Amino acid sequence: MAELASWRDGPTKSAIVDFVARVTADGSPDFVAPEARVATFDNDGTLWCEKPMYIQLDFIVRRLAEKAAEDPSLAGQQPYQAATAGDLNWFGGAITKHYQGDDSDLKVLAGAVMALHATMTVEEHAALVSAFYAGARHPSLGRPYPTCTYAPMVELLRYLEANGFTCYIVSGGGRDFMRPITSTIYGIPPERVVGSAQGLKFEGVDGHGDLLIQPALDIFDDGPEKPVRIWSRVGRRPILAAGNTNGDDEMLQYTSGLRLLVLHDDADREFAYTAGAERALEHADKYGWTVVSMKNDWTSVFD
Amino acid sequence: MAELASWRDGPTKSAIVDFVARVTADGSPDFVAPEARVATFDNDGTLWCEKPMYIQLDFIVRRLAEKAAEDPSLAGQQPYQAATAGDLNWFGGAITKHYQGDDSDLKVLAGAVMALHATMTVEEHAALVSAFYAGARHPSLGRPYPTCTYAPMVELLRYLEANGFTCYIVSGGGRDFMRPITSTIYGIPPERVVGSAQGLKFEGVDGHGDLLIQPALDIFDDGPEKPVRIWSRVGRRPILAAGNTNGDDEMLQYTSGLRLLVLHDDADREFAYTAGAERALEHADKYGWTVVSMKNDWTSVFD
Repeated sequence: MAELASWRDGPTKSAIVDFVARVTADGSPDFVAPEARVATFDNDGTLWCEKPMYIQLDFIVRRLAEKAAEDPSLAGQQPYQAATAGDLNWFGGAITKHYQGDDSDLKVLAGAVMALHATMTVEEHAALVSAFYAGARHPSLGRPYPTCTYAPMVELLRYLEANGFTCYIVSGGGRDFMRPITSTIYGIPPERVVGSAQGLKFEGVDGHGDLLIQPALDIFDDGPEKPVRIWSRVGRRPILAAGNTNGDDEMLQYTSGLRLLVLHDDADREFAYTAGAERALEHADKYGWTVVSMKNDWTSVFD
Repeated sequence: MAELASWRDGPTKSAIVDFVARVTADGSPDFVAPEARVATFDNDGTLWCEKPMYIQLDFIVRRLAEKAAEDPSLAGQQPYQAATAGDLNWFGGAITKHYQGDDSDLKVLAGAVMALHATMTVEEHAALVSAFYAGARHPSLGRPYPTCTYAPMVELLRYLEANGFTCYIVSGGGRDFMRPITSTIYGIPPERVVGSAQGLKFEGVDGHGDLLIQPALDIFDDGPEKPVRIWSRVGRRPILAAGNTNGDDEMLQYTSGLRLLVLHDDADREFAYTAGAERALEHADKYGWTVVSMKNDWTSVFD
């Protein structure tokens, strides 16, 4: 039986162990049949590190710089110029301006991001993503990105599976950015990865065909869209969900059993922040969700 | 090991058995790892009977009549009037007019269909669907609808699973119309049912929430959309697919291994028709897909 070895004994670990015991014990009034033991996990900040920037943003910045290197006419334009210079402040600034009511830089960025992989096949895109994972490292932790997963959360996935649960990733991040690595780092296969995605178009030639990436967003899998995508993909309501931001609030509301909210309060071992999690934390307090303190509940953060 | 007992010995059965042997034998040059053994099946006309009308259309007509009975002000309007009178010709006529360039009746029908379950929860809708399956019978075969599945195709699902395949339904029919029955009749759980769907909206109250059906189509899972939805849901290219109409043509093109096209040529035991399958049959001939003759390849059609 998988163990929660990196979870410190205390009320959080007990809440998990007790919940799992209640839904799995034969004859328990809260028994849930194995096929309905669905658990959904946000990815960025819940299963792996999201600071100082989303791992996918690092991939995008590198890809923009590669594109500018291939086509020097782009090098003087944003966002290629900032990407080439490694000027991450420009990217952060585009978001800040957006919140100040000025969408000009965000539109420039979104257009370039949508064009980045447009008309590639999904397999060509997956190969670029795999190459990134094989080489890139976290800028401050110094670890390869595939080792930036939270050890206690990966243990939780195994613990739930050992108890008959089926675990899904339900992330605002890119579905096809996660899929090439999730089997390796989480033991979660592509069919159980739900996330944001650009449109796809089928193109057939001589009895064979491919899916080509289109330069427009098809799904933004965040906030109220998460429960919708869970139903679309799974057709069941989760009995356990874990998240860490306001983007997970509706998924947690939709979940019928144990709701876990990961609190980033460990500046020594990871990062300490609550920005973007205000509403979820308020709801955790109001509705009795289980807050997971990285500092107090986990004996180690990374493997 | 599951057997293809209702398949007559001959080239079609051999094509299936030989393909499965090639992709599963250790050391075979065509070996496919179990996790990549994905098979996708159309539903209407491939796994169960679609004549004289789609089973879902029968459900819709009954629901329209129920709605008119609840609200007599609707009884004089189309499509409620036709539904109440059991006048299926009106529904067929709406389609015929559409092909003649007159969308007026089709628009009336589509509006009523989209409104039929609007703002219900997905669970309320599932209960109505389950009640339909519990009571309704096929109009000419006289069988309960859940027994209108093709026995040889259900055997094929079990045969593939016994050989490490994972089978999905990928249908132009309603995802949430199929899900309440697929586990029972096909052994395929809701998370492996892909289909058309109305939009959904999350509504949360006091820390809990539900998904409400919206009066607009979100996904029409047919033709070139089928490979797109397969990638979105599964993240892998099928190595086996089965269909029976032009709406399955792109899914079959997208499939890398065995392509099966079910031919309805058995007026005695089921129905005989090729309307709507012209392009797929042409492609089967041109690209060497395997045509399954219901008359010649199946010893029995229904259980």
